[in-house]
Amino acid sequence: MPQKVCIIGAGLIGSSIGLALRAAGIAVEMLDSDPKAQALAQDLMASIPDNKEADLVIFALPISAISSVIDEAYQSNLNATFMDISSIKNKVKVEVSTSVIPKGYFLPSHPMAGREVGGAHSARGDLFAGRIWAYDPDGVSKRAVAHGLAVIQACGATPVAIESEDHDRAVAQISHLPQIISSLLASQLNEVSGQALELAGGGLRDTTRIAASSSALWSEIITANSEELRPLLKRAISDLSHLLDHIEEPKIVAEFIEAGNRGHSRIPGKHGGVARNYSQLPVVIEDKPGQLARLFDECADAQVNVEDLSIEHSPEQFTGLITLSLSEGDAQILYSHLQSRGWKVHLPRQ
Amino acid sequence: MPQKVCIIGAGLIGSSIGLALRAAGIAVEMLDSDPKAQALAQDLMASIPDNKEADLVIFALPISAISSVIDEAYQSNLNATFMDISSIKNKVKVEVSTSVIPKGYFLPSHPMAGREVGGAHSARGDLFAGRIWAYDPDGVSKRAVAHGLAVIQACGATPVAIESEDHDRAVAQISHLPQIISSLLASQLNEVSGQALELAGGGLRDTTRIAASSSALWSEIITANSEELRPLLKRAISDLSHLLDHIEEPKIVAEFIEAGNRGHSRIPGKHGGVARNYSQLPVVIEDKPGQLARLFDECADAQVNVEDLSIEHSPEQFTGLITLSLSEGDAQILYSHLQSRGWKVHLPRQ
Repeated sequence: MPQKVCIIGAGLIGSSIGLALRAAGIAVEMLDSDPKAQALAQDLMASIPDNKEADLVIFALPISAISSVIDEAYQSNLNATFMDISSIKNKVKVEVSTSVIPKGYFLPSHPMAGREVGGAHSARGDLFAGRIWAYDPDGVSKRAVAHGLAVIQACGATPVAIESEDHDRAVAQISHLPQIISSLLASQLNEVSGQALELAGGGLRDTTRIAASSSALWSEIITANSEELRPLLKRAISDLSHLLDHIEEPKIVAEFIEAGNRGHSRIPGKHGGVARNYSQLPVVIEDKPGQLARLFDECADAQVNVEDLSIEHSPEQFTGLITLSLSEGDAQILYSHLQSRGWKVHLPRQ
Repeated sequence: MPQKVCIIGAGLIGSSIGLALRAAGIAVEMLDSDPKAQALAQDLMASIPDNKEADLVIFALPISAISSVIDEAYQSNLNATFMDISSIKNKVKVEVSTSVIPKGYFLPSHPMAGREVGGAHSARGDLFAGRIWAYDPDGVSKRAVAHGLAVIQACGATPVAIESEDHDRAVAQISHLPQIISSLLASQLNEVSGQALELAGGGLRDTTRIAASSSALWSEIITANSEELRPLLKRAISDLSHLLDHIEEPKIVAEFIEAGNRGHSRIPGKHGGVARNYSQLPVVIEDKPGQLARLFDECADAQVNVEDLSIEHSPEQFTGLITLSLSEGDAQILYSHLQSRGWKVHLPRQ
């Protein structure tokens, strides 16, 4: 367990890690090239750092900024281990391996939490609670791994060990490609009439939700991971072209949709593991304050566990459709319960 | 207002319309080529049809099946008006215009409700409550339009007048292309390792949710609307190829993401009109029954209106992140309220 941690980069991520470490009783020193940001972040830590060297230095900076701070960070903390938190791992791993930091002293890591713009003032000690935190222990000393795991634990995140190259391929597949595809779809809406957009339903909203993400953040991530993304984009273009070439052939169109069915079913559900097939229970509610509370009171009364839900609002009408996802058994229990209490509930479906 | 409606097609949609019409005091006759389905649907209507002709005949059939029933439907109901409910409008409109049905007696229409497999036994009179119901009044007699609007009203849906060609282009853009893109993305997951999938977050789940849709339903819709979809697919392929060609250029990648930002902002929010920019309020809760109810009780206490929400579960950990969408003012009120009650609530963000 590190006694003192130095965090370089006083943005949202660095400051949030700092708060979590402070809550765990660890001394935290915040550094930033911007003195105001550094002062604010250090204030948030509610403690003044002593002059001792840190046991652990965390690079909480954009990928492109890490190389410029390595030398000084090492010279000031000769006995420390080091870790980073950037979205792409192999580039950083290679960069650090040719730096002054001794072999085995650097742990590449990546907390899978949405990085928002916001700075130290938006920091929260529980920003990573329940999130995945990937790290690459390959060739890393036991001490550096232990320091990293202590940070992940203090943040309430779930550590997942994965090699840097596998990580970069994985995030290209499950995060960067979805971002690109969602942005692609949303950008097509610039050509759509306002009348057409009035017909939009929940499907369009779901598929384009992440298209609202920051272009500054994503242009850095996508260009940094371009090597992994290139074959994925080629494959997607090829699959889409195949559909276009055969768009009047029901069999080939059905195969295309079925390939999506199979892929969708591979996404793990709650708490890891294979996706559970939840039952969907649609409930029509009046669209006014208190209705959701009443509905969830009923769920609590019926002692069922709601795994997920979606809300669909109705244009120009004050009703909303809530679709609850539950286990098959819970869906049946809740269906009967809600029906007996006079709710507009539909039969559950798989 | 029609006194008697004949519905041809005793599936989920036809039977649900029937139930809504019955609730509005209208006589309903259900017909189906499958005698069992017809008997079940008629039973659900809780009334035996008389021998009178119908004032309105609704074709509640797959697009490909409509032509085979037109002649008999017309001969049996010489004074009726006609409407359909299929997902593509122009094809049906043209087909009916060359049939025995007199000019102006047919109203093309399309309730924008998710068509699930299910049949009459899943029918609900409120299936269309709050949903958009598109119809094309172009060249249609006042009587046929009035009959159609009476049905839409009885179903609790919101009528939206749109020309058939505009409808087909609109649904290609806001429904069929999103389905194809979501299926495309999900199908790429067939190449992804289980380890990589463990890193999947809410973004992937949102973008691929509709990829679980029925291939039988969607191969019919996509092939039937191939003419509208072809230019959209070409454009999407071209935009994606442009990104691929310039994937190491941050400026072009940023432009790609920004085009998505703009498109996303055009999607209308609740109750039609321009999308409101809601504030997002993240709350970390324990993942056990009753927590959502407690949270929404607090929302009711604070008298705020939750516009939308998402749940993100944590793998292997029993905490969940709920993100509530509210107006900026309500978000501030709820933030203070939840904080004072000891909830793990983060600062709202736009």
